[in-house]
Amino acid sequence: MKAAIFEGAGKPLTIGDIPSPDPGPHELILKVKACGICGSDLHCTEHGPFTLPEGSVMGHEFSGEVVGLGTGVQGRFAEGERVTALPVIIPPIPPVGLEDAEPWMRPDMQPIGLGQIPGAYAEYVRVGVTQTRRLPENVSFEQGALVEPLTVGLHAVNRAEMRSGDNVLVLGAGPIGLASTAFALRMGAANVVVSEMTDQRRALAESVGATATIDARGNVLEQFAEKTGALMPDVVIEAVGVPGMVQQAVDFVKPRGRVVVVGVCQQQDQMMPMVAIMKEVGLQFVLGYEPRDWDTVLSFIASDRLRVDHLVTDRVGFDAFPGAFEALRTPSTQCKVMLKPE
Amino acid sequence: MKAAIFEGAGKPLTIGDIPSPDPGPHELILKVKACGICGSDLHCTEHGPFTLPEGSVMGHEFSGEVVGLGTGVQGRFAEGERVTALPVIIPPIPPVGLEDAEPWMRPDMQPIGLGQIPGAYAEYVRVGVTQTRRLPENVSFEQGALVEPLTVGLHAVNRAEMRSGDNVLVLGAGPIGLASTAFALRMGAANVVVSEMTDQRRALAESVGATATIDARGNVLEQFAEKTGALMPDVVIEAVGVPGMVQQAVDFVKPRGRVVVVGVCQQQDQMMPMVAIMKEVGLQFVLGYEPRDWDTVLSFIASDRLRVDHLVTDRVGFDAFPGAFEALRTPSTQCKVMLKPE
Amino acid sequence: MKAAIFEGAGKPLTIGDIPSPDPGPHELILKVKACGICGSDLHCTEHGPFTLPEGSVMGHEFSGEVVGLGTGVQGRFAEGERVTALPVIIPPIPPVGLEDAEPWMRPDMQPIGLGQIPGAYAEYVRVGVTQTRRLPENVSFEQGALVEPLTVGLHAVNRAEMRSGDNVLVLGAGPIGLASTAFALRMGAANVVVSEMTDQRRALAESVGATATIDARGNVLEQFAEKTGALMPDVVIEAVGVPGMVQQAVDFVKPRGRVVVVGVCQQQDQMMPMVAIMKEVGLQFVLGYEPRDWDTVLSFIASDRLRVDHLVTDRVGFDAFPGAFEALRTPSTQCKVMLKPE
Amino acid sequence: MKAAIFEGAGKPLTIGDIPSPDPGPHELILKVKACGICGSDLHCTEHGPFTLPEGSVMGHEFSGEVVGLGTGVQGRFAEGERVTALPVIIPPIPPVGLEDAEPWMRPDMQPIGLGQIPGAYAEYVRVGVTQTRRLPENVSFEQGALVEPLTVGLHAVNRAEMRSGDNVLVLGAGPIGLASTAFALRMGAANVVVSEMTDQRRALAESVGATATIDARGNVLEQFAEKTGALMPDVVIEAVGVPGMVQQAVDFVKPRGRVVVVGVCQQQDQMMPMVAIMKEVGLQFVLGYEPRDWDTVLSFIASDRLRVDHLVTDRVGFDAFPGAFEALRTPSTQCKVMLKPE
Ligand SMILES: NC(=O)c1ccc[n+]([C@@H]2O[C@H](COP(=O)([O-])OP(=O)(O)OC[C@H]3O[C@@H](n4cnc5c(N)ncnc54)[C@H](OP(=O)(O)O)[C@@H]3O)[C@@H](O)[C@H]2O)c1
Ligand SMILES: NC(=O)c1ccc[n+]([C@@H]2O[C@H](COP(=O)([O-])OP(=O)(O)OC[C@H]3O[C@@H](n4cnc5c(N)ncnc54)[C@H](OP(=O)(O)O)[C@@H]3O)[C@@H](O)[C@H]2O)c1
Ligand SMILES: NC(=O)c1ccc[n+]([C@@H]2O[C@H](COP(=O)([O-])OP(=O)(O)OC[C@H]3O[C@@H](n4cnc5c(N)ncnc54)[C@H](OP(=O)(O)O)[C@@H]3O)[C@@H](O)[C@H]2O)c1
Ligand SMILES: NC(=O)c1ccc[n+]([C@@H]2O[C@H](COP(=O)([O-])OP(=O)(O)OC[C@H]3O[C@@H](n4cnc5c(N)ncnc54)[C@H](OP(=O)(O)O)[C@@H]3O)[C@@H](O)[C@H]2O)c1
Ligand SMILES: [Zn+2]
Ligand SMILES: [Zn+2]
Ligand SMILES: [Zn+2]
Ligand SMILES: [Zn+2]
Repeated sequence: MKAAIFEGAGKPLTIGDIPSPDPGPHELILKVKACGICGSDLHCTEHGPFTLPEGSVMGHEFSGEVVGLGTGVQGRFAEGERVTALPVIIPPIPPVGLEDAEPWMRPDMQPIGLGQIPGAYAEYVRVGVTQTRRLPENVSFEQGALVEPLTVGLHAVNRAEMRSGDNVLVLGAGPIGLASTAFALRMGAANVVVSEMTDQRRALAESVGATATIDARGNVLEQFAEKTGALMPDVVIEAVGVPGMVQQAVDFVKPRGRVVVVGVCQQQDQMMPMVAIMKEVGLQFVLGYEPRDWDTVLSFIASDRLRVDHLVTDRVGFDAFPGAFEALRTPSTQCKVMLKPE
Repeated sequence: MKAAIFEGAGKPLTIGDIPSPDPGPHELILKVKACGICGSDLHCTEHGPFTLPEGSVMGHEFSGEVVGLGTGVQGRFAEGERVTALPVIIPPIPPVGLEDAEPWMRPDMQPIGLGQIPGAYAEYVRVGVTQTRRLPENVSFEQGALVEPLTVGLHAVNRAEMRSGDNVLVLGAGPIGLASTAFALRMGAANVVVSEMTDQRRALAESVGATATIDARGNVLEQFAEKTGALMPDVVIEAVGVPGMVQQAVDFVKPRGRVVVVGVCQQQDQMMPMVAIMKEVGLQFVLGYEPRDWDTVLSFIASDRLRVDHLVTDRVGFDAFPGAFEALRTPSTQCKVMLKPE
Repeated sequence: MKAAIFEGAGKPLTIGDIPSPDPGPHELILKVKACGICGSDLHCTEHGPFTLPEGSVMGHEFSGEVVGLGTGVQGRFAEGERVTALPVIIPPIPPVGLEDAEPWMRPDMQPIGLGQIPGAYAEYVRVGVTQTRRLPENVSFEQGALVEPLTVGLHAVNRAEMRSGDNVLVLGAGPIGLASTAFALRMGAANVVVSEMTDQRRALAESVGATATIDARGNVLEQFAEKTGALMPDVVIEAVGVPGMVQQAVDFVKPRGRVVVVGVCQQQDQMMPMVAIMKEVGLQFVLGYEPRDWDTVLSFIASDRLRVDHLVTDRVGFDAFPGAFEALRTPSTQCKVMLKPE
Repeated sequence: MKAAIFEGAGKPLTIGDIPSPDPGPHELILKVKACGICGSDLHCTEHGPFTLPEGSVMGHEFSGEVVGLGTGVQGRFAEGERVTALPVIIPPIPPVGLEDAEPWMRPDMQPIGLGQIPGAYAEYVRVGVTQTRRLPENVSFEQGALVEPLTVGLHAVNRAEMRSGDNVLVLGAGPIGLASTAFALRMGAANVVVSEMTDQRRALAESVGATATIDARGNVLEQFAEKTGALMPDVVIEAVGVPGMVQQAVDFVKPRGRVVVVGVCQQQDQMMPMVAIMKEVGLQFVLGYEPRDWDTVLSFIASDRLRVDHLVTDRVGFDAFPGAFEALRTPSTQCKVMLKPE
């Protein structure tokens, strides 16, 4: 089958031919219909300690059609069903001694599209049956491929332990910041203000419902107060991921407020613990999501309470894909770029 | 000034003339612009242990214009401002020994419109300055008078300790059930299903966004499963308030689920504790709201995320008011009836 | 092997001979060293809707020595090890479609000693390997057999959502009330007051550390205030289980307080919801425990922070067992009665 | 009256004569019976941005006898009563516009002994009546002067959101680490392990009940696993306050664990956010306590569940006090040093 193959840091992906996957007993094969490019894919194809092995196939934000069924699937899915899936495979039989563990927390969980199990920058992808979710009738394949990054935002908001009426400041209006914005609004925030650099991204923030946007290059708290009437946010969600942002979030948040750090800063960073102490800040770092969050996101899209189509700014086939991927390494006005294999 | 006066259980209100109120140092006088009729007003004008004293003036869901200012108000409000207020007066200086207590929890708090301080079924009403909230420009007086019952619904949802993605079942589509529905939807519920008796009320539930409605006279759980795909609700909000409803809520809720009881059953009731034990049910009884909930509701209305105008089904002046009040004692299709003094 | 067999409601247990159990692949066989009599065993041997099938072997509070190992146990336990076990067997391979479920919440979980899998009123008992817990060296078999009821008390306290410094009132000083008392004291309570009928039981409450005891037949709140200086408890734990107790607990608790109902009232009960509403009471019904609670209880006993030996008031062999069992049907001064098979 | 006066950074305190305080209407004057030296006192007498003004009288951990009463105290305290007090004065009448605020969170709160209101390194100290707590009969003045630092430890543990059975690692065995240890043990921890540099401090940790101690200079996690059987702690409490400790705490804690930072690092610090993200760490910075925590600590001491006398390693009068104070600037085996004015 066709796939976009990682050839090593500094080199563009190539479109090549690799063997199609076969389903294990508790697995499905999907014909990929849409797969988003995630910022992490860009990061882990750079030189550094976390570079993927050559030959890897990435792609962990996808949807597709069921075309192959493992022997243990037992009628739970049928060929032709439209689905998305958590990008992990969890063996159905727990390792000896871990029968009591929550499956999602088990060490034998394997990621899809991040170096271990080949991902969905390909015609077909192999997924776990218990990780697969049907797309409701009115949810498109593209929306299905957005569920993964949206769920990251939902989880970030969940861990903010918001009270209804809280004022929220989101730093960064990439896909993750936008998803966090959308869910903060749907989980009782009074104001959700988004701080960003460029006009285009601020416009996107408004399109997902941000009650106000501010210019990240100006005085953030002054703009925040002007837009909300509140001096400081109750909750700050950091969705940028460069050095200095954690301290900024701590500086911005209200005394006794909460900061959720979803942005991934891979370098050493600096902070002033004293500032966090004097305000009794709670700093929650977050990773990924819980399985049930996927169902929540799907039900929000299906009931038309989460409009996300405009987050997809570009759609490309295999031929244009390596170029589109490289283009994302430099600042742009794109939001989510989708591989559409056919 | 004109006011609707309670003449004793079994008698209609009369429109009479009573002295206009004077503001205490930390109080304001409002010219009443709108005041809703609450079910509790009907209850406490019936024969029984909780009947109000004769001569009482009710009305605790109101908005108005500031026309009088106490000497200690010190420029915090000006004449002509459009406001609503929590229906309680809390003396600004705490009683000796309670200086450390949260004002809202203090025993020297006095309700407005429930027998102690005269309410807003009148031309003017006296309120506490710290309990007063400005109406944002785009919030009408009628919307301002809806804030009180809406806030009861918000508080009920707050105490449900919902997780995003929960399925919620609301019992009853009166103003309180409808408010609970609207807020459950805005605080992360996947589905909010409303159970009611009549078509008209079910239509109202749909108009506030219920993802489905069901007929309370049929098999509730069967209809719930059909509409949601989930066997049982994670959260049940009981907003009816007649005997048997608490047990019904316990019967409907999922194992380890939560029941919030906002409906007020004033009689002895029966239940099977064993059923609640076997499911580890959490049963949270709720009363009123927290002051901060008022700001939340106002900010939701102001940002156009809570459309509530259609909850007001009738508007009457003083002359028609006693009749409209009595009419609510028998089942009707009305939702919120408003006194509009001019 | 020898076992105490249930012959039907109204008849005493008989000591008979039944086949010894064989271990399934993920199971162990224990030689029973001690097994407590639980109040539920008395209840489910009475006439009523929940009577056990004739021929059942009860006993769900036990400890023993490993004498048999299933083929899939793979060195996780060895013969001769001293253990206790949760009285449930959970098949290691989840049912199709439930691979994602927490094992403990799965419907294919089977209780031991309550009619399905034979219990430990016998020489040997069959248990699940993942449910088995080693006894630390300094924990005796008798202490091991107390872990189950102690854990019920720990779980009740866990679900009270106590804040440090809370005043707790425990209703009932049977094994469950005493366990709740011991754990409330170890989880930050300022005062733990136990209400009971008889002097002997009150003495037991003091021996587990209750900061005061009161006479359940007198005015409970008056005595509570006298003993603690606080008007009302923040938390009430109901550990009696007869009609009227839930309402009593609601009457006693502080406004905005929490009631945990662990006592099992199997009959219809009455309550006044209005009282619970006016105080915004939270009523948490509880059942059993979480697996991790077993480790907690064991670590408390092992580190000598929970002295429980005096809770065992009687020890009997097989011959005396049926008589001891029947004797518990009438009020007594006993606390925990243990079967010691040898 | 006699007092120990700060003469500027780099100079020892001097014992001088200053005017005795007069009580404001809602204030009391205490004759100081004991006052502890806090590490913060040492910090804020060093050169730096936070140096106290010359002439300041420090001392915020004290107890004493009531010798003067404000005109508004109205019989709530009598001369001769034995008390301790929160080291803050909160005016009884809230500022205009803040009548609704929790007193404890108000900006007009003034600290005692940190530069604004003179502290208890003196014969007399002025305190707020609502902040004053009676010492129960069996609580000594020295114990009373320990309440403040003990309460810091209680608050740290409260904010750890511990579940019963958690394993806790405390970094540092100064007074704050020891207090945290004592309370973690009383709030349901299974193991509380203390990491420290010196044998003497480790011995102190054991004396407050630490289930194990480890050498901070060795491999902390290895020692932790050896002592507890658990790979990593569920909760880490950082009570050292030097650069690098926050990252250490993050490194040590279990995935999805919680870190409480009570140690105050006044300098710029470094950390790797990526590590915290990959483990979904929650980092709670804490400051001080809540007023109700004081009552909790007092009730624990009074009911003999918290033995703390041995934390006081030295007692000095005024003459020896400046020397004792300076001596604490270099490492020592002392724990709490008390000024005993008479
Ligand atoms: N924790 C998790 O589980 C998880 C999962 C997925 C992704 N992530 C991380 O989440 C972060 C966001 O992901 P993404 O896909 O949304 O990335 P993205 O598209 O790069 O978005 C980040 C946005 O932040 C803006 N920005 C830069 N500096 C800013 C500042 N000081 N204040 C406000 N905005 C600023 C950027 O603007 P410019 O483009 O103009 O610089 C960009 O629009 C990344 O670090 C990613 O690795 C975490
Ligand atoms: N806790 C608090 O702080 C607080 C504050 C305000 C109000 N309340 C209470 O909240 C409750 C609701 O107030 P409300 O103003 O919304 O009252 P309402 O207008 O009387 O609404 C109750 C609704 O429930 C319906 N209903 C009756 N039986 C039902 C059943 N078995 N299943 C489902 N629906 C059923 C009624 O229909 P029909 O009219 O056809 O019977 C009615 O539409 C009242 O008990 C009120 O006292 C509590
Ligand atoms: N939820 C669960 O998971 C779970 C698990 C195990 C047990 N349980 C239940 O928990 C309850 C307690 O169990 P147990 O083994 O401790 O039972 P128990 O030995 O019967 O203890 C109950 C105690 O309450 C006393 N009592 C009776 N009326 C009282 C009153 N009004 N106020 C205060 N005390 C009163 C009884 O005294 P007298 O003997 O003098 O009457 C007795 O000492 C039972 O209902 C049991 O079924 C629940
Ligand atoms: N957040 C608040 O509200 C609050 C309130 C009061 C105090 N504090 C802060 O809490 C911290 C502790 O106060 P304290 O009075 O207990 O101070 P302390 O007496 O200085 O105790 C700190 C202890 O940590 C030890 N230590 C140093 N490096 C260590 C390491 N790497 N691992 C483990 N232990 C190490 C020190 O040993 P050596 O002496 O041998 O170096 C000392 O015994 C201070 O930073 C203080 O400012 C905070
Ligand atoms: Zn991603
Ligand atoms: Zn009302
Ligand atoms: Zn039992
Ligand atoms: Zn201090």
